[in-house]
Amino acid sequence: MMDLPTAFGLINALFCCYITSASSIEYGKFKPAQNQAVEDIKYDFVIKKFRVPLDHFSFSMNATFEMRYLVNDTWQRGNDPPVFFYTGNEGDIELFAQNTGFMWEIAPTFGACLIFAEHRYYGKSMPFGNESYSDSSHLGYLTSQQALADYADLISFLKSATNMKHSPVIVFGGSYGGMLSAWMRMKYPHLVKGAIAASAPILQFTGITECGAFARVVTSDFRIAHPECPKTILKSWTAIANVTSTENGRKWFSENWKLCQPLKNSSDIKVLKDFLTDIYGNLAMVNYPYASNFLAPLPAYPISKVCSYLTNSNQNDMALLLDLNKAISVFTNGTGNSKCLSVSENSSPNLDSKGWSYQSCTEMVMPMCTNGVDDMFEKIPWDFKKFSNDCYQNFKSRPQPYLACEEYGCQDLSAASNIVFSNGLLDPWSTGGVLSNVSSSTVAILIPEGAHHLDLRASNPHDPSSVIQTRQIHCNFIKKWIHEHWVPIDDKNTVQHEIISV
Amino acid sequence: MMDLPTAFGLINALFCCYITSASSIEYGKFKPAQNQAVEDIKYDFVIKKFRVPLDHFSFSMNATFEMRYLVNDTWQRGNDPPVFFYTGNEGDIELFAQNTGFMWEIAPTFGACLIFAEHRYYGKSMPFGNESYSDSSHLGYLTSQQALADYADLISFLKSATNMKHSPVIVFGGSYGGMLSAWMRMKYPHLVKGAIAASAPILQFTGITECGAFARVVTSDFRIAHPECPKTILKSWTAIANVTSTENGRKWFSENWKLCQPLKNSSDIKVLKDFLTDIYGNLAMVNYPYASNFLAPLPAYPISKVCSYLTNSNQNDMALLLDLNKAISVFTNGTGNSKCLSVSENSSPNLDSKGWSYQSCTEMVMPMCTNGVDDMFEKIPWDFKKFSNDCYQNFKSRPQPYLACEEYGCQDLSAASNIVFSNGLLDPWSTGGVLSNVSSSTVAILIPEGAHHLDLRASNPHDPSSVIQTRQIHCNFIKKWIHEHWVPIDDKNTVQHEIISV
Repeated sequence: MMDLPTAFGLINALFCCYITSASSIEYGKFKPAQNQAVEDIKYDFVIKKFRVPLDHFSFSMNATFEMRYLVNDTWQRGNDPPVFFYTGNEGDIELFAQNTGFMWEIAPTFGACLIFAEHRYYGKSMPFGNESYSDSSHLGYLTSQQALADYADLISFLKSATNMKHSPVIVFGGSYGGMLSAWMRMKYPHLVKGAIAASAPILQFTGITECGAFARVVTSDFRIAHPECPKTILKSWTAIANVTSTENGRKWFSENWKLCQPLKNSSDIKVLKDFLTDIYGNLAMVNYPYASNFLAPLPAYPISKVCSYLTNSNQNDMALLLDLNKAISVFTNGTGNSKCLSVSENSSPNLDSKGWSYQSCTEMVMPMCTNGVDDMFEKIPWDFKKFSNDCYQNFKSRPQPYLACEEYGCQDLSAASNIVFSNGLLDPWSTGGVLSNVSSSTVAILIPEGAHHLDLRASNPHDPSSVIQTRQIHCNFIKKWIHEHWVPIDDKNTVQHEIISV
Repeated sequence: MMDLPTAFGLINALFCCYITSASSIEYGKFKPAQNQAVEDIKYDFVIKKFRVPLDHFSFSMNATFEMRYLVNDTWQRGNDPPVFFYTGNEGDIELFAQNTGFMWEIAPTFGACLIFAEHRYYGKSMPFGNESYSDSSHLGYLTSQQALADYADLISFLKSATNMKHSPVIVFGGSYGGMLSAWMRMKYPHLVKGAIAASAPILQFTGITECGAFARVVTSDFRIAHPECPKTILKSWTAIANVTSTENGRKWFSENWKLCQPLKNSSDIKVLKDFLTDIYGNLAMVNYPYASNFLAPLPAYPISKVCSYLTNSNQNDMALLLDLNKAISVFTNGTGNSKCLSVSENSSPNLDSKGWSYQSCTEMVMPMCTNGVDDMFEKIPWDFKKFSNDCYQNFKSRPQPYLACEEYGCQDLSAASNIVFSNGLLDPWSTGGVLSNVSSSTVAILIPEGAHHLDLRASNPHDPSSVIQTRQIHCNFIKKWIHEHWVPIDDKNTVQHEIISV
């Protein structure tokens, strides 16, 4: 799964959570700041290390390693301040810290301590150093359960500090990080009071979410930008096949697309198509309402820009491919400085795609398919057998498609509490998200104009009202959870044991 | 922790759950039996095997093993019947099946399928066969988390059967098995609808329950039987020390107590004292209101019988020790057939004390201490350092005293739901139990006249009314959970997202 580190600057926003609320809330020990200035918020943090067991769930070995975590206590106030804890996902934690502006923006109001915990096997939290990815015996401890247990250890450690002993901990996360936040609340509710799980596709698993849904949302995003756009892209697959079927055609294509490595054979064509497919998915995720710079600088609503070149599906193949090249350049060469296009590169180098590939090949098996009818992609069914064989070839590992739902629950989340699942409807990952309320305390927020966890990002003058409202709802729930931490709901005396025949 | 397999016969009881309730309940798909005859209930089961991963939480190895489970589907009715699932604890699962008559007695009413799952490393569920206990690298996978994951796998497998796909699963367990039941509901609420956790000391951990509480309840049980009884036992430690301080004294003691191995040195004296201490604790646990045959045949309220010999604490040492010998014989020679007393034997051979010792030396660290003032034992403080060193010597393992509470929660169980914690107040393990309601759905039942998980045992004409009522309360909750399984509580539409300043 891709995640979306973008927009490194923090904009001085005005969303209501810390502006309008500052003087009117007071819950137990929680006292909000007095309109604390946030103009000076920077993504400053202290990088720390914490030693955790390699395997939390057996005692056959004593191996440990150091995970990284980031701390900012600038706005922390008094004893037992709230701890806002980001459950890191598949990449360097510094990126997530710099791209989760929401936490930084609300920390002053809540007087919260900010913690960003790095996921094992990502960033610099390598259990075996450079050997961590060497083979499956080393990689085998890269699992979500182990990562959650790392976070549980870290939270327990943080709470061992005298002034944190009773701190309420709220977890935050986006994408896979949001899945971890939700699961953290489900599995360790005694350690975390609530979870803001943004764009968390915890239902993107076998038998739960239909494999073609993701591609349909991607296609829809392009259709919204221009009705001809997905038609043109759909046609482009045949155009690519037609043009590159001859040596001259491959030469023409390689020259006109300025490929760093000219196309030589069918394998190269497949790599090209996979690269394009990834880009369309990435564009759908980062279709933010303002310029951002993930992978390469992107304009506001980048899909609109891409589709501005793809308004005519009734051209001949070469003309269509020349248009497509211009369109793709929005993503691949936003600066105009790129001399050639390398299609073999990871389309999201900020994230560790190998780590996620491994997780996909073990427990995070998320079926994907396309059919070329309901979406703008070539027909590629979900072929579990092939997927499994590829996994085995790459990692000597067989994917376990039902493991995540067995471990965390998919169809029945009724026992969960204090989780907000937010999903942007422009985000293709929303198809695997929780889109309706589970209960009064496990709720779903839909953000019609939102892409991938836009709500966790720093506020921006171009934010649509739905994301501004979502951030307010997050704040309301966070306040409620902190309030309940200090003044627990007490219904225990309502129990009546009826010793009567029934 | 000891557990208490006793009384193998099933008595045709009359407690109301299946007698009075049969015709008046109907929840969703659940239809109770029409006063089904239970006279013929026998502890018949089919023994099955199920293959599970050795390590559920990493992918570094592919090792698997076969766990055992027992099935009785005699009373199972229709599609999607309730599954009553015993989460096996530290011993052979057949013993637990034969000593959890409650499940067998209520199965006909609920039309339930009975499953008893054997805990890894106990009974015949040995991951490495005879090598399972050979060293810590083999033993290291003996953890509660791994056992819970075994049960999750097994439940998922059972529910893959066409006629079980939507079955509600209720877990049951006593003692450590009750801890596992409660934790199963906490960690896998999507797989089990509720838990009957009998005599489950989930709070018997460092910093939560005071180490001397267990011994005080044991002492109290003896005091209730006769006020002189604990005084006599308290004096006996000095009497033993005095008498066995000389060679003649040791000879006298060995002859009069008919020890199989005469006392030779201080090490033998310590073994004798530990043996006696264990017996007092065991007696407190099995202080049932009717004869039972755990370890050896025991009369009803065995402590009363023991204490009938210990009514005079003001005797000289030898007279006191002769009385004590008679008292102890109630436990060690109930049949009168024993020719000599072996004090080096495990006082509860039906359970695998080595497995539990290992668990105590890793995650299940339950501090115990005595002071000789508030209890009838010699003063032995809780010495974690010594305990840890002993663990290291025995298992090359260091106990982790805070692990269980970090993993499962102790101080804050507020997010738990659908758990009944029942505790007998005669049971010394009740000191680590949940003794007050946590919420309206996680409740505590106290059984003033109850010993260790008496409520899970088959009903008996001598059962005190409090245990009969407790079983009825269990039934009420089980019905409620099954009802909610088919007609879920729906409060999800009560959510109001207030987008107002707060």
